[in-house]
Amino acid sequence: MLEYDDLIDPSLLPRKGKYLRYYLLGIADREGSFYISIKKQDNAKFGWVIDPIFKVTQHRRNRIILELFKRVLNCGRIIEKSDQEDMLEFVVDNRRHLKEKIIPFFTRYKPIVKREEFLLFAKVVKALDEGKHKDAESLKDLITMLYNYSNDRRYSLEYILDEISFRQDRLLRDHKPGT
Amino acid sequence: MLEYDDLIDPSLLPRKGKYLRYYLLGIADREGSFYISIKKQDNAKFGWVIDPIFKVTQHRRNRIILELFKRVLNCGRIIEKSDQEDMLEFVVDNRRHLKEKIIPFFTRYKPIVKREEFLLFAKVVKALDEGKHKDAESLKDLITMLYNYSNDRRYSLEYILDEISFRQDRLLRDHKPGT
Repeated sequence: MLEYDDLIDPSLLPRKGKYLRYYLLGIADREGSFYISIKKQDNAKFGWVIDPIFKVTQHRRNRIILELFKRVLNCGRIIEKSDQEDMLEFVVDNRRHLKEKIIPFFTRYKPIVKREEFLLFAKVVKALDEGKHKDAESLKDLITMLYNYSNDRRYSLEYILDEISFRQDRLLRDHKPGT
Repeated sequence: MLEYDDLIDPSLLPRKGKYLRYYLLGIADREGSFYISIKKQDNAKFGWVIDPIFKVTQHRRNRIILELFKRVLNCGRIIEKSDQEDMLEFVVDNRRHLKEKIIPFFTRYKPIVKREEFLLFAKVVKALDEGKHKDAESLKDLITMLYNYSNDRRYSLEYILDEISFRQDRLLRDHKPGT
């Protein structure tokens, strides 16, 4: 485990990288979050964006855990949590890193209690990678799926779908040939 | 992982027992507690007892995690948390189980952030196993050590030490030969 010796005395870590990864799985399965925010964003094609973020939150005194995530997953950044100054967050929101690092990691090291949450997250990252958000109907389907999973969200589903349809109509009108 | 197939679909678990144990280490390193309570107990020799307890707390919906701890550690029980009805606790307080199951497990699967807490816990379990609490001076040393580690406790150290000395004097007086 010499690859971590700038972070921590390697004798304090599990003896093999694979064991460390299962240890981190245990941490992530409780304190990690596969969060998908739905944000109003006026300059987006349909006014709304889907933004998947993987996060692990820890008290400042346990920063080492977040450093290990950053090293093992080889992406992300560690930031202060905006509303709680004693808390730090390891955050990965870069779409390519989610696709190439986070999804493969947790496909191999499978969450147990956060299994469904992760599967949904992986599905959404894949859909965005395929450009599904660029088509109004697919975007509406994705957002509806997210609300079916949990509707503990700021805006009502109806409000979002109406807004997307409004922008969709306007785009169709503006691009109608011959007008 | 057929030994768990009455609890969970084995395909949802890590492929090897060792990996599952590192996963549980990750959980315990955040949500486990190596707690040592110091309790007033009038019928104890010196009026005070030291009571080490290993606990893992989880929401009722994640009961599977506690079942896995119980199965892997082969001891303990799962109970409702008295003050929060949605929470469950896996609890090991039996002294022999602490000595023969919990301490060896975490000596092999080493906590990273709870390292010091665990080392103190192991030290106290060992001292109690050696009967250190049966001697007033050793009991006072143990309690003083625990307060040096953390004094976020109900009674002041001075109060406890005074009470133990009082009982110690009374025992010496009552047993004085020739009186």
